[in-house]
Amino acid sequence: MMAKLEDVAKLANVSKTTVSRVLNHRGYLSEQTINKVHQAMATLNYRPNVIARQLYKNQTNLIGILLPTVANPFFGELSVALERRLYQQHYKVLIGNSMNDSDKEQDYLEQLLNKQIDGLIVGTHNRGIREYQEMNLPVVAIDRMVNTDIPIVAADNYAGGKLATELLLKGGATKIIHVNGPKKLAVAAHRRREAYEDVMRLHGLTPITYEIDFNIAESDKKAQLQQIFSDYPDVEGIFSSNDTDAALLLQIAAEMGRRVPDDFRLIGFDGTQIVRELLPQLTTIIQPIDEIATQAVSTLQRRIKGEQTDHEIILPVKLWPGATI
Amino acid sequence: MMAKLEDVAKLANVSKTTVSRVLNHRGYLSEQTINKVHQAMATLNYRPNVIARQLYKNQTNLIGILLPTVANPFFGELSVALERRLYQQHYKVLIGNSMNDSDKEQDYLEQLLNKQIDGLIVGTHNRGIREYQEMNLPVVAIDRMVNTDIPIVAADNYAGGKLATELLLKGGATKIIHVNGPKKLAVAAHRRREAYEDVMRLHGLTPITYEIDFNIAESDKKAQLQQIFSDYPDVEGIFSSNDTDAALLLQIAAEMGRRVPDDFRLIGFDGTQIVRELLPQLTTIIQPIDEIATQAVSTLQRRIKGEQTDHEIILPVKLWPGATI
Repeated sequence: MMAKLEDVAKLANVSKTTVSRVLNHRGYLSEQTINKVHQAMATLNYRPNVIARQLYKNQTNLIGILLPTVANPFFGELSVALERRLYQQHYKVLIGNSMNDSDKEQDYLEQLLNKQIDGLIVGTHNRGIREYQEMNLPVVAIDRMVNTDIPIVAADNYAGGKLATELLLKGGATKIIHVNGPKKLAVAAHRRREAYEDVMRLHGLTPITYEIDFNIAESDKKAQLQQIFSDYPDVEGIFSSNDTDAALLLQIAAEMGRRVPDDFRLIGFDGTQIVRELLPQLTTIIQPIDEIATQAVSTLQRRIKGEQTDHEIILPVKLWPGATI
Repeated sequence: MMAKLEDVAKLANVSKTTVSRVLNHRGYLSEQTINKVHQAMATLNYRPNVIARQLYKNQTNLIGILLPTVANPFFGELSVALERRLYQQHYKVLIGNSMNDSDKEQDYLEQLLNKQIDGLIVGTHNRGIREYQEMNLPVVAIDRMVNTDIPIVAADNYAGGKLATELLLKGGATKIIHVNGPKKLAVAAHRRREAYEDVMRLHGLTPITYEIDFNIAESDKKAQLQQIFSDYPDVEGIFSSNDTDAALLLQIAAEMGRRVPDDFRLIGFDGTQIVRELLPQLTTIIQPIDEIATQAVSTLQRRIKGEQTDHEIILPVKLWPGATI
């Protein structure tokens, strides 16, 4: 016969309420009590009916994470950091890679509305999705603006863009080009572009920004980046808004016989662990991934409880010196 | 008042069974019928009580994926490929990064037993977990051996290891060292080591394998890899069982003034997209990530239906020529 909750309570010599509190991670419980209950559950091979309990409690302890793709190292490492924080808070993670597919994003939002998940962390780039208009959903955005009602957690992209551009200037470059994603996307990363353009104008220089879609095939991306060198053979430096494009630019520069950093200076953005491991020579701006994850999770928890949250949480960036400036 | 299933049926002019089939993605339905039902649901702002439905159906359409960490690019790209395939099959993905933490792995297995998830795909490395002993669980392992009852999907690691070692020999190296993870882990990757050792012995050469834990800090890893050059200053080639270690070896060789591939030849393993983008010069063996994901999902679906599956599904590898051999 299947063991019941009362059998566990009896064997552990505690009340049914205590067993329930252990199962739901609620209220203060001594480690000794928790151990006694866990031992009794193990002895009796007790399996709580989790789905029935969810129905009763109207919560699932599931958090959805919707990112453009974890194959992009920034989002890959962010997803790991988020999952680790959420697990510590007794949440499980439902993950989706939207690949900028708005149907899929819609689908995840439907789940939130259907109470299959308790909250949602989004880092995708599709604007105008109707569901976000509904007020007071437990949603936190990372690195994107969804609407004025949803809190955003992001690196200080403006400071990062300013630092990158100033470093290129300080290194001696004046013909500096910026590479970023299409402007139509409502991503916080566009503040990098704003900073670049502001710094250039402040120095009496003309800003030139190339817009390259992150999701196109690598060969097309390489052709578009090579075009920069055809259009501006005298380019002295490039500030790339992500490290994978910077890596391609480094290859192109090498193929063209440009010496880095003597003939050509380069700085990327994101500074993920994998890029720092594989390409430590690339100078880049490090986004504080762990801190972004920590703030996103604590903000989401406040939203779930219906508490007030800041609209914008902006976190400082750091420099990875590298050797390309 | 909240709309009910019968309201949707009435507005769409179909039976309640049809609405239910649309909701559950079951049976043959014309696109026209699906659209009519979706439109009626949208008009009425109908929200199915998903959790109650799960309780009734005893299935959740959730699949757990448990990987060592998606910060390792192989597992990151694998997780994206798995999620894409599962989404196409109307599953959602519950993701966990075990970081080789057996408590966490145990926790996910408990969820499977508690019917919070319908199936589990594991790529973690913790042996001896009691739950796997229970028969006929819908579990598929990737790149690891769990027990004789659980099917495994993996690249042809032996063929990959053989190809790598033969290429180093063909390039002119004979003092060839292999770097792999600790032998105690029950991973399929050890077949790469077996292949290396077999090929070396076949050529009358002595195999030398260094065991380096993937999860140690990068600085410790670098120190351990540098030790190889101290222990064997005359080393002519290294076959590294993963590309991130190979990247470190490439840096060490450059720091030591070894010319690659003239003085020192190197080949990695995994050949993920990000490594091919960031470090295209690294010669490596490409694991067929998309094919592994496709086979893992279809095998899992057969397990869920209680159908017979092959015990081992081994998929061919490819060479990324690069320029380090």
